[in-house]
Amino acid sequence: MPQTIILKNVELLSDCDELIQTDITISDDCITGIGTAMEAGDKTRVIDCTDKLAIPGLINTHTHAAMSLFRSYADDMLLMDWLENKIWPAEANLTAEDVYYGTLLAIAEMLKTGTTTFADMYFYMPQVAEAVAESGIRAVLARGMTGLGANALQSLAESEAFYHEYHHTANERITVMLGPHAPYTCPPDYLKKVVSLAQKLDAEIHIHLSETAGEVENCFKQYGKSPIELMSELGVLDCGVLAAHCVHVSTEDIQIMRQKQVRVAHNPGSNMKLASGIAPVPQMLAAGLCVGLGTDGAASNNNLDMLEEIRLTALLHKVNTRDPLVIPAQTAVKMATAFGAQALGLADKVGRLAPGLKADIVLLDMDSPHWCPRHNRLSLLAYSASAGDVHTVIANGKIVVENRRLTTIDEEKLLYEAHKRSMRLTGK
Amino acid sequence: MPQTIILKNVELLSDCDELIQTDITISDDCITGIGTAMEAGDKTRVIDCTDKLAIPGLINTHTHAAMSLFRSYADDMLLMDWLENKIWPAEANLTAEDVYYGTLLAIAEMLKTGTTTFADMYFYMPQVAEAVAESGIRAVLARGMTGLGANALQSLAESEAFYHEYHHTANERITVMLGPHAPYTCPPDYLKKVVSLAQKLDAEIHIHLSETAGEVENCFKQYGKSPIELMSELGVLDCGVLAAHCVHVSTEDIQIMRQKQVRVAHNPGSNMKLASGIAPVPQMLAAGLCVGLGTDGAASNNNLDMLEEIRLTALLHKVNTRDPLVIPAQTAVKMATAFGAQALGLADKVGRLAPGLKADIVLLDMDSPHWCPRHNRLSLLAYSASAGDVHTVIANGKIVVENRRLTTIDEEKLLYEAHKRSMRLTGK
Ligand SMILES: [Zn+2]
Ligand SMILES: [Zn+2]
Repeated sequence: MPQTIILKNVELLSDCDELIQTDITISDDCITGIGTAMEAGDKTRVIDCTDKLAIPGLINTHTHAAMSLFRSYADDMLLMDWLENKIWPAEANLTAEDVYYGTLLAIAEMLKTGTTTFADMYFYMPQVAEAVAESGIRAVLARGMTGLGANALQSLAESEAFYHEYHHTANERITVMLGPHAPYTCPPDYLKKVVSLAQKLDAEIHIHLSETAGEVENCFKQYGKSPIELMSELGVLDCGVLAAHCVHVSTEDIQIMRQKQVRVAHNPGSNMKLASGIAPVPQMLAAGLCVGLGTDGAASNNNLDMLEEIRLTALLHKVNTRDPLVIPAQTAVKMATAFGAQALGLADKVGRLAPGLKADIVLLDMDSPHWCPRHNRLSLLAYSASAGDVHTVIANGKIVVENRRLTTIDEEKLLYEAHKRSMRLTGK
Repeated sequence: MPQTIILKNVELLSDCDELIQTDITISDDCITGIGTAMEAGDKTRVIDCTDKLAIPGLINTHTHAAMSLFRSYADDMLLMDWLENKIWPAEANLTAEDVYYGTLLAIAEMLKTGTTTFADMYFYMPQVAEAVAESGIRAVLARGMTGLGANALQSLAESEAFYHEYHHTANERITVMLGPHAPYTCPPDYLKKVVSLAQKLDAEIHIHLSETAGEVENCFKQYGKSPIELMSELGVLDCGVLAAHCVHVSTEDIQIMRQKQVRVAHNPGSNMKLASGIAPVPQMLAAGLCVGLGTDGAASNNNLDMLEEIRLTALLHKVNTRDPLVIPAQTAVKMATAFGAQALGLADKVGRLAPGLKADIVLLDMDSPHWCPRHNRLSLLAYSASAGDVHTVIANGKIVVENRRLTTIDEEKLLYEAHKRSMRLTGK
């Protein structure tokens, strides 16, 4: 008999964003009912949700989880100085176990701040998958590949093996994509190999595209076309693509992306901190593109707080377009939930609160001054809520955060290990 | 005999931003020692501060506290539609008691999120002062004045009376300024009266300047000069001015502001949400201007979270200038502390942790994933911390927040009153 959880008297926004107060019934890993719950049986856990707002678990569509080990190590630097003198040397020292602990640190933070699904691109991916499996979070994992170094072919082989071993594992919480890093690190011949592998496996692709103006400029110099055009020509965009950043995309690029149904991971915090630029998100949304939100790695953010990315998205594009009507609260919240799920190919599983979907649910504690008065929960969520409001988190039907504490991770041991390893990696 | 508090084994950043772990001794309302504390006597309270970072109480240099009653009431609207159809009609119903509860709601939020000083401009100011006095927070209060309506002269008289009655009261926690709302609501003749009163009282001025492009355009049309030039000509800038916004200021304006030592309250969250524009903060700082940070009212933010304003400041100007070196963590944090104190004329009292200064201290709980690893506390504070990390707050030597709970405010009653009043004011 499956375990049943009843979230009693919880507030939530219906599919048409109407506020209702009712019960949510969870059986095993699914939402089985929204509405007055039947009487509780022996195996039923009833949680009083007075003053709690239930929202779908937030979806982080782009990160490099283990880079949380480099949080606060090197900030306020020029991009190449930062990469060449700080990040890459430190990353060169990473062991598989470091990646396990770095990923688990990121997962601990994500769960505690309301994220229940993340899309990751990194290396030592079996260890990343182990951290995902243990912690209860959901993830779309891609082994990052570059076509320039000695590991080019090996990482292709690793990607294939990783796909076979981990795709649809951990109660289907893990999905695997292929992760060619970017056009400037993966030459056309290499990308063709990636496309062949994607076709063979029927796997989708997670890639960085058009993050900086310099990247686009160099692409035009080298190939006479934009990264989007180049990817289209190489067949990459026919594989089903999750494209991170897309800061410097033209109207023509957006048309191509629309035709190829490219899904975008918008990372406002990282783009602002690295001064990369401002993605034309209002235009992409207007063109009908699916745009989710991401944090990028904690080294360039410096947290994995998706409520913050919701707020940055709503605020940044208003001031950038000088139009206060751009990306209202509802749209920003959807980007971190329903649109994020769609971006990761998980729209039939998560991103909304509805019977039949997986039970990935966040309960926000509204009993505090910044949630008062409560005229509009969506406005409060987008413009006033903060990470500390995350009270309870349910992932795949399991309570993973209870009264602000992790239930699946030994946080004290984790923080000790993560800090120790970070100091070793950075030579401290 | 004064009460003594010892913050034992606390981490803090020295004046040269070196991280030290030591004790802070507080006697009565002042910091009396930073360094290993003497043995505790009978009347001494010792607080174990392991894993806590002490920072100066944050300083919100521009708000309209009681507008927290309109939080989430009307968002994602055009400015004039918002003001004319939502905010002004609701404000017209405000009673003195509403303003008391609205201000107390704002203070509750500010204290819980680490703010110990705020600069306010509103009306029913005796009730605002009452809330300040009771709660233990520090404030710089100005009765907002407009020169257009029937209340023009009355509000001047009220300002004078308010100054006499409240300036340097509540153990000197209250300072009073004059608050002419803005050049577009206060004609030159009226501003001259304000200047005369300021000279008579030796009071400083808190005013909105150059918030929107439209305001500056209209000023040029009407007077042939910018709001800054107009204020300079009218003698306003000779009174000691705290100028909110300064979004649309020219290089010439900045030169005038430098000569007149105008202090700026930068409100990135409000400016972004209302799509007003991006203030040239890097240029103002480079010109040697004092720039503090503010939230503006909660109706256009929608919270009073100064950690968020620190982050927005550091991120927004980087992406706006496409320079990741602009406004590093240290500068953004100083804007919310030392520069804020200077902006409010309180640099000899607050804004830094140093013996002789008032004990306005925030203890942040670093025992969580997003504070791990800890390579750089300033980076963590600016780019990763969140409001939920505020653990203990000391204002003027008194513990006002203890383990995330208010000690001077009955929060349950307050939230009940504030919500009820907000619903009445908005006709719900
Ligand atoms: Zn990335
Ligand atoms: Zn204002």
